Amino acid sequence: MKTLVYDRHGDPTEVLRLVEAPDPLPGPGEVRLRLRVMTINPADLLTIEGSYGAEPEPLPDTPGHGAYGIVDAVGEGVDRLAPGDAVLPVGRGLWTDTLILDARMAVPAPAGIDPEQAAMMRANPSTADIMLRDYRDLAPGDWVVQNAANSAVGRLVARFARDRGIRTVNIVRRDGLADDLKAEGADVVLVDKGDNDLADRILAATGGIRPKLALDAVGGASTAALAASLEKGGAVVVYGLLSGEPCALDARDLVFRDITVTGFWLSDWFAKADRDAIRRLNGFLAEQMAQGRLHTEVAARYPLSQHREAMAHAAAAGRDGKILFVGE
Amino acid sequence: MKTLVYDRHGDPTEVLRLVEAPDPLPGPGEVRLRLRVMTINPADLLTIEGSYGAEPEPLPDTPGHGAYGIVDAVGEGVDRLAPGDAVLPVGRGLWTDTLILDARMAVPAPAGIDPEQAAMMRANPSTADIMLRDYRDLAPGDWVVQNAANSAVGRLVARFARDRGIRTVNIVRRDGLADDLKAEGADVVLVDKGDNDLADRILAATGGIRPKLALDAVGGASTAALAASLEKGGAVVVYGLLSGEPCALDARDLVFRDITVTGFWLSDWFAKADRDAIRRLNGFLAEQMAQGRLHTEVAARYPLSQHREAMAHAAAAGRDGKILFVGE
Repeated sequence: MKTLVYDRHGDPTEVLRLVEAPDPLPGPGEVRLRLRVMTINPADLLTIEGSYGAEPEPLPDTPGHGAYGIVDAVGEGVDRLAPGDAVLPVGRGLWTDTLILDARMAVPAPAGIDPEQAAMMRANPSTADIMLRDYRDLAPGDWVVQNAANSAVGRLVARFARDRGIRTVNIVRRDGLADDLKAEGADVVLVDKGDNDLADRILAATGGIRPKLALDAVGGASTAALAASLEKGGAVVVYGLLSGEPCALDARDLVFRDITVTGFWLSDWFAKADRDAIRRLNGFLAEQMAQGRLHTEVAARYPLSQHREAMAHAAAAGRDGKILFVGE
Repeated sequence: MKTLVYDRHGDPTEVLRLVEAPDPLPGPGEVRLRLRVMTINPADLLTIEGSYGAEPEPLPDTPGHGAYGIVDAVGEGVDRLAPGDAVLPVGRGLWTDTLILDARMAVPAPAGIDPEQAAMMRANPSTADIMLRDYRDLAPGDWVVQNAANSAVGRLVARFARDRGIRTVNIVRRDGLADDLKAEGADVVLVDKGDNDLADRILAATGGIRPKLALDAVGGASTAALAASLEKGGAVVVYGLLSGEPCALDARDLVFRDITVTGFWLSDWFAKADRDAIRRLNGFLAEQMAQGRLHTEVAARYPLSQHREAMAHAAAAGRDGKILFVGE
């Protein structure tokens, strides 16, 4: 088996090395996967550099999350998977051609799915869908407010909400995006110029109906504005850190209006989710994919041995699609 | 019946008026109370002035929460209470000598309790006890961190925690309080001088054990320091607004360390609490009171008709105890 490893934090084009080792055998309850597609994500590069926000992983470490593989051996007691099954492994450490995994963390891939699209499909659509389901019961006609609405996740939030009849207020930082976002599913698009009237503008746009849920990938004063716009008992879900500023919250919204603030991190969600939740999510993603609604462009494919080229390409600005590792 | 009412926000010595009306009759499921003791709290004065943080009450409004009364009539279907029973009414609008109340909101007073102490006992001890129970399961040896530790609630938190073997880090703003707070039950007392090392000092004081729960009555950067000190999955409970600054939170603590932030407001708690929760709380308070551990000094007593004098006295600095309204 071949695995990419780094022993110290630094430039991803420099600190990664390819390690070869004998193929391992799956233990009881485990499966062995041959990974065919491994995605390269911004979070992976930041993790290697040591500048990702999560607790650093112990070194040496193998990066990577989001992959597609084929089961080629199963351990004792595994009856839901068999050699030849296509799966989407949950978790990280996926820049390897061979992986031993708890069978429960090997989610069957939707039938007939394109392997590359399947490997890429999980992170953003999962984040958007889970945030619209796990925090508040949303019914048709309810409002959700989000910032960073022009991000990949933000656009999926608007689209998935529209599919369910949920209305969205979409906050962006610059003019000229409204038509595009409305075509995606946004009901209202507001430009945040940093003035103090954002909460009032949100309510004006909804005709005074307070949103039940706010999705915050920005932080700073934007968090406070989203929170101030919510109905009593509403939820702020923080999932990003774009401004780099601490999330600000008026204590009166917390104390007197029962606003709650929680963070969302997909890795944590998968670590805690039960089988039913993962099955529901997977069904949803498969359906979206079958409808051709989750297509992501691929800019280039590299074998693990060409990791330097892959890292340089992934770090380059202005590329046109995702960079993938593929099994040799 | 006589009731204090204000029709517009303003100076409590000016805008209150005493309204007389015929005694009302309790409807099905309701009881009629004759209130003997009605407490005057800072929140009441702020509400009358229109500067309390909660949504303003519709006008005209009757202030007041925290009272002691005697049931003198019961409506159809009320079998748990009978005329002559002493009760502690839950809710607000209590500056009246006669009150119609849903029987479920009339909590039986502990037997043999002093009426004045009973009327005063609910707010601070209830807040301290509920915050130590409702947000995280705390076991002996667990740590809780709180700011505003020299407040009435803060001191009760330290004491109630000590009674359960829970350890507390107590943040205060000035020197010279440590011995006093330790006698009250505090394990560690730290002075926050506004430096950026508060989270580190909290962890140094606990020997590196991260608290499970943070109680925040201050806001601003203090919220961020408490949150940063917590274990993964820990809870920040905001219950006060002393600094007047927005609560700051590092988004990384929310996203990657699963810290949750919620507000606590006793009025809301009572509005949502089930019968068992209120019974447990009442039992706890009765036990504390029976042990003589919840005594509050009374500075003066006024009939409702002397509301101007009562308001002026309650607003005065340096008084020595609570001001009460008493039934005539």
